[in-house]
Amino acid sequence: MSEVYAERRTRLRDRCVAAGSPAALVSRPANVRYLAGGSPVGAVLLIGPDEDVLLCPAAPGPDPAEGRVDEVLYRQPPTGGVDPAVVAVGLARTAGADALAVEEHHLTVARHRAMGSAAPGLRLADLSSAVEQLRIVKDEEEIGSLRIAAEIADQALGELLESILVGRTERHLALELERRLVDHGADGPAFPTSVATGPNSGVSGHKPTDRRVEEGDFLSVCLGASYHGYRCEIGRTFVIGTTPADWQIELYELVFAAQRAGRQALAPGAAYRDVDRAARQVLAAAGHGDATAGLTGHGVGLEIDEDPQLAPAAMGKLDACVPVTVEPGVHLPGRGGVRIDDTLVVRQEADGGPELLTITTKELLAL
Amino acid sequence: MSEVYAERRTRLRDRCVAAGSPAALVSRPANVRYLAGGSPVGAVLLIGPDEDVLLCPAAPGPDPAEGRVDEVLYRQPPTGGVDPAVVAVGLARTAGADALAVEEHHLTVARHRAMGSAAPGLRLADLSSAVEQLRIVKDEEEIGSLRIAAEIADQALGELLESILVGRTERHLALELERRLVDHGADGPAFPTSVATGPNSGVSGHKPTDRRVEEGDFLSVCLGASYHGYRCEIGRTFVIGTTPADWQIELYELVFAAQRAGRQALAPGAAYRDVDRAARQVLAAAGHGDATAGLTGHGVGLEIDEDPQLAPAAMGKLDACVPVTVEPGVHLPGRGGVRIDDTLVVRQEADGGPELLTITTKELLAL
Repeated sequence: MSEVYAERRTRLRDRCVAAGSPAALVSRPANVRYLAGGSPVGAVLLIGPDEDVLLCPAAPGPDPAEGRVDEVLYRQPPTGGVDPAVVAVGLARTAGADALAVEEHHLTVARHRAMGSAAPGLRLADLSSAVEQLRIVKDEEEIGSLRIAAEIADQALGELLESILVGRTERHLALELERRLVDHGADGPAFPTSVATGPNSGVSGHKPTDRRVEEGDFLSVCLGASYHGYRCEIGRTFVIGTTPADWQIELYELVFAAQRAGRQALAPGAAYRDVDRAARQVLAAAGHGDATAGLTGHGVGLEIDEDPQLAPAAMGKLDACVPVTVEPGVHLPGRGGVRIDDTLVVRQEADGGPELLTITTKELLAL
Repeated sequence: MSEVYAERRTRLRDRCVAAGSPAALVSRPANVRYLAGGSPVGAVLLIGPDEDVLLCPAAPGPDPAEGRVDEVLYRQPPTGGVDPAVVAVGLARTAGADALAVEEHHLTVARHRAMGSAAPGLRLADLSSAVEQLRIVKDEEEIGSLRIAAEIADQALGELLESILVGRTERHLALELERRLVDHGADGPAFPTSVATGPNSGVSGHKPTDRRVEEGDFLSVCLGASYHGYRCEIGRTFVIGTTPADWQIELYELVFAAQRAGRQALAPGAAYRDVDRAARQVLAAAGHGDATAGLTGHGVGLEIDEDPQLAPAAMGKLDACVPVTVEPGVHLPGRGGVRIDDTLVVRQEADGGPELLTITTKELLAL
């Protein structure tokens, strides 16, 4: 296992050296975890020039702790409240580095200034999103974790569908789903579970309310599990009662067609924006051009919303082994709507095409 | 209600003008909420010079939305992915401001640079923690919300104590507590609920595991409710079984004495560090000088961990109407420990002294 992290750090170090920085400081928690195998709260990771060091915030007690975690030297200074990033700057300077690449999209202005003051001779360069870029393509172990996360979410959702729904509130259904995720072995929910009923259904990221499920409602649910830190996402919409209304069937079929078009556009080499357009144009042709919010989908991994963004203005092309969501939706104000969301892994055609991780049926179920 | 927010903004505006900035941009979500009554995801608040404007991230659809929320002009630009903070810079410039105070402890380096580029003639100053300082002393409406939050947490904890605990896992107990918080009207948990059993008990911020409650265990629980955005905290330690062991009684009495000393030190004018020392020296006298981590307590409000910090190196003195936690603990590696945590409001002696919000008993209960 530890070799995986060492290899990732080597790739980052090579990039930094090529860009003129002999050392880098990684502060964004998901990036620290990706490179060091774990990210204690507030820890930062110094990459090179001599050695990689995971610096943690001060611990209680007078003695500095030191050890090794997955080949990374681990240091915890004694109490005193010094920012580990400032300690790292000192270490980089002592090791002879003249420049240190830092995550300017994560560090605050105040913290960056404190680091600059701590070692005046050291130039602070921008690491930019170099680690996020490394994280886009997953290895099979990462995909394995996502696959288990998706199984857990499918199980939790499946059990909910077997229970009585009418009369229960969005908030209680959301809490029950989260409990079931943990029951089935999730670290926890991948993000706050969304349950939306009636007029709320189909709203992206709807925060559950005390509204109760009623006969005739659309019910849309979006949940995900985190497993070994990897986060998946699934969204489904159901009808409550025996016979869906015509407008419900029509709207469902439209969103389903858009979501299928998006899924089918997933292939190595496909432009991000083309996947977005594939789904979006199905909705636009039916008069719902502005229906799907900013994006049709996004990458998932150690964070629930990672690169790439499948959006109209996104630049770049998909690679194999990139897990993404495809999640178009339409919401009709006052009436409700439909959202269908899967997590898939981009695969070569020869490998069977996109691998669907979230396998709960997408037929319109009447519950 | 809206006057409360307008008054808060006036106080901030006066401070900024006195410091040489005719306008300020508030980006930290809790600060936005404090000043505008709400903080849509990603929204920033521009204070003056002409008018206060809450700028939200782009919405789906081609049209910019605009309206008024609690006397704040509310603007949502059309899609396009422009950072609202960059839009705010342009507005401040157009209104004739020559300087804009920003939250350097919240804005990232990358975002700050984008703002600087958007209006080269505008000087970006540092607002520093001006809003956090305003937030320390609460008004009676804020304290009323905290009081209800504490009642909810007390109720959830009380119900748990009436249920059967032996054999259940830390994770399930934590989930059940969170469900009960919501049942009793909380927006949600104020922070991830901590349930720690046996050797895990007494560890600050312990993340619940699959360990099951056993006879003879210490069980320590830390939870809080959020109500109308205001967050409280309560922590208690219990013994499972009929008769606590001698070492358990001794340790409990020690931590209880330390926590009582901390509570009794709460008074307007008391130095933060003196409250910390009051609790810490009780533990130190019994040979647990390094037991309590960095701090004995902290402020609570719209965030669960706010100013002030009741810690050895903290500068400053308590005011009346400041809600804080007092939460010393001792953990004996391999055996477990005790943590007792209350939320109290600092009050004048003439008003009855510190007001205890979390009223669950602190007797050592055997469950």
